[in-house]
Amino acid sequence: MKLSSKNFDTRIDTVYDAIVVGGGMGGLSAAIYLARYGLKCLVIEKGKGRSLWMQDLRNYLGIDPHVPGRDILNHGTKQAIDWGADHLRGYVEDVTDEGETFAVKVKIGKKDSVYPVFRGKYLIAASGVIDVLPHLEDMQNVYDYAGYTLHVCMICDGFDMWDQKAVLIAATESQINAAFVLNWFTPYITVLTHGLCNVSNDMKQKLAEYGYPLYESAIAGFVGENHQMQGIKLTDGTFIEATTGLINMGSIYNNHYLKAIEGLEWDGENLITNDMTQTTHERIFALGDLKKGLNQVSIAVADGTLAATQIWRNIRRQSSPRKWEENIKN
Amino acid sequence: MKLSSKNFDTRIDTVYDAIVVGGGMGGLSAAIYLARYGLKCLVIEKGKGRSLWMQDLRNYLGIDPHVPGRDILNHGTKQAIDWGADHLRGYVEDVTDEGETFAVKVKIGKKDSVYPVFRGKYLIAASGVIDVLPHLEDMQNVYDYAGYTLHVCMICDGFDMWDQKAVLIAATESQINAAFVLNWFTPYITVLTHGLCNVSNDMKQKLAEYGYPLYESAIAGFVGENHQMQGIKLTDGTFIEATTGLINMGSIYNNHYLKAIEGLEWDGENLITNDMTQTTHERIFALGDLKKGLNQVSIAVADGTLAATQIWRNIRRQSSPRKWEENIKN
Repeated sequence: MKLSSKNFDTRIDTVYDAIVVGGGMGGLSAAIYLARYGLKCLVIEKGKGRSLWMQDLRNYLGIDPHVPGRDILNHGTKQAIDWGADHLRGYVEDVTDEGETFAVKVKIGKKDSVYPVFRGKYLIAASGVIDVLPHLEDMQNVYDYAGYTLHVCMICDGFDMWDQKAVLIAATESQINAAFVLNWFTPYITVLTHGLCNVSNDMKQKLAEYGYPLYESAIAGFVGENHQMQGIKLTDGTFIEATTGLINMGSIYNNHYLKAIEGLEWDGENLITNDMTQTTHERIFALGDLKKGLNQVSIAVADGTLAATQIWRNIRRQSSPRKWEENIKN
Repeated sequence: MKLSSKNFDTRIDTVYDAIVVGGGMGGLSAAIYLARYGLKCLVIEKGKGRSLWMQDLRNYLGIDPHVPGRDILNHGTKQAIDWGADHLRGYVEDVTDEGETFAVKVKIGKKDSVYPVFRGKYLIAASGVIDVLPHLEDMQNVYDYAGYTLHVCMICDGFDMWDQKAVLIAATESQINAAFVLNWFTPYITVLTHGLCNVSNDMKQKLAEYGYPLYESAIAGFVGENHQMQGIKLTDGTFIEATTGLINMGSIYNNHYLKAIEGLEWDGENLITNDMTQTTHERIFALGDLKKGLNQVSIAVADGTLAATQIWRNIRRQSSPRKWEENIKN
């Protein structure tokens, strides 16, 4: 059922089998499986996730390469609800481990917000990451290209940059090293720091050896039309010709609600998980971009399968077996 | 490019980066990724794989629940070829590890067969399993229901059996234990052995305690219409009312071509792999149903992503980096 500020109170006394934080590719896959295991689950989706920005999804089996991420999200949300999952648009403020259950406090609505608390036996952390984009005065200028010809994922889109003139936008010196992987796809790389970091002489020398120009001025704007980049203007007046680009400025992890929970093991911002996506807290699972590994739709979708299956196994093993009573002779 | 007996000789001197044995869900996902990494790959598909039998794929995110497996396979094959993969309809007879490459001997064509040998640096084993079905004189009678209301995968289809009268068809006593998991979905279970095994008194007693009737006669035929089961007739004349069923008679592994290769570690018929689906042989990867884990489409698709990515990383790290020559001042 679709929940909102108008009807959430019908579920306020429910103890869900699992609450899924994040209705992206991983969370929706988990919800479809959980619902088809006959388990009660609630997906809480804040909107504006990473896959919503994908203008086309070119490497996920079964989907036409021009299908945007939002189509899969809409389709999967409907599918999860059809199989019996609950879905709520809201922002998870805080999660408290109560021992047998988690208490999940959600903010619903930007204006006149309400803050209900939902309860679930298991927590599936599927809230993902969002890419840092270069901050310009006119952000619409960034959005006009990001996800089209200005990419954020080399594995997803390196192929579409093949032998084109490309900019690599990095915010730290270590992020510049992506140039030496991106050159598998194109050697015509110009590196931009958007004025955000100092570049060591060693790195400058290495870039010079590879023939990759480095510009340290801030970006003034992207130039092109119909989402097709033609170049970049810097604030110092320089124009750089480029038909594509890779933004490699790091990610913001949507994991604030997990930081106070005891028993979780982290590797930086990523959660450590086992081969069923279970974290070091036995009732918390972490999917997709929140855990270590590749940030790919296919991985998140499989992670949802794994988490839901392990939760089903746990719950099933703790339940009394169902007998065919009328056939039992006492 | 689509290869066949007419044009395969154009590729006989090619050294592929990877040869993918099996063009099912895992193999096609691997091929899409390999092609988009700019790697040369060949998919060899014998036809009639497990996913071809799926009449609807209800738990794979982004696909309508009534879409049959063959539609995804056709779609993915076209997609892989469009991105640059080669695809050949043929049967892998034998694989020889030549050290730097694998020699893959393929039988093409049922009549006037030819037996070319293709070479690749890496081998991706994605040839999967096929479910054992009860053998009846009229196999069409089995095919009329298998994949519709007579299922082979409890995780995939347990939900669609909810509280229905169901038969469990097992070929060994240990396979009968699936009844005590299937009862999560329905307690109205009748167990059939199709005359293939002896059932111990312990098991008979346990089934009686659960109220699950056991019939040890062979199956004469499935009864129903339009793929909707209504019951099963046994050779002893018994009629069992059931609107659904689960066949749990084991699987045949399509892994004959791997048996003579040294360095592979097995767990029964499953290959042991690491978190990138690499087997204990560093140039062989195993996907989906051939490796340990869940036999689910989403898992196979993610496995294809992982294998292709690790192969790309290996090949990239061994290649000379591409420089932007015209910018380099000597």
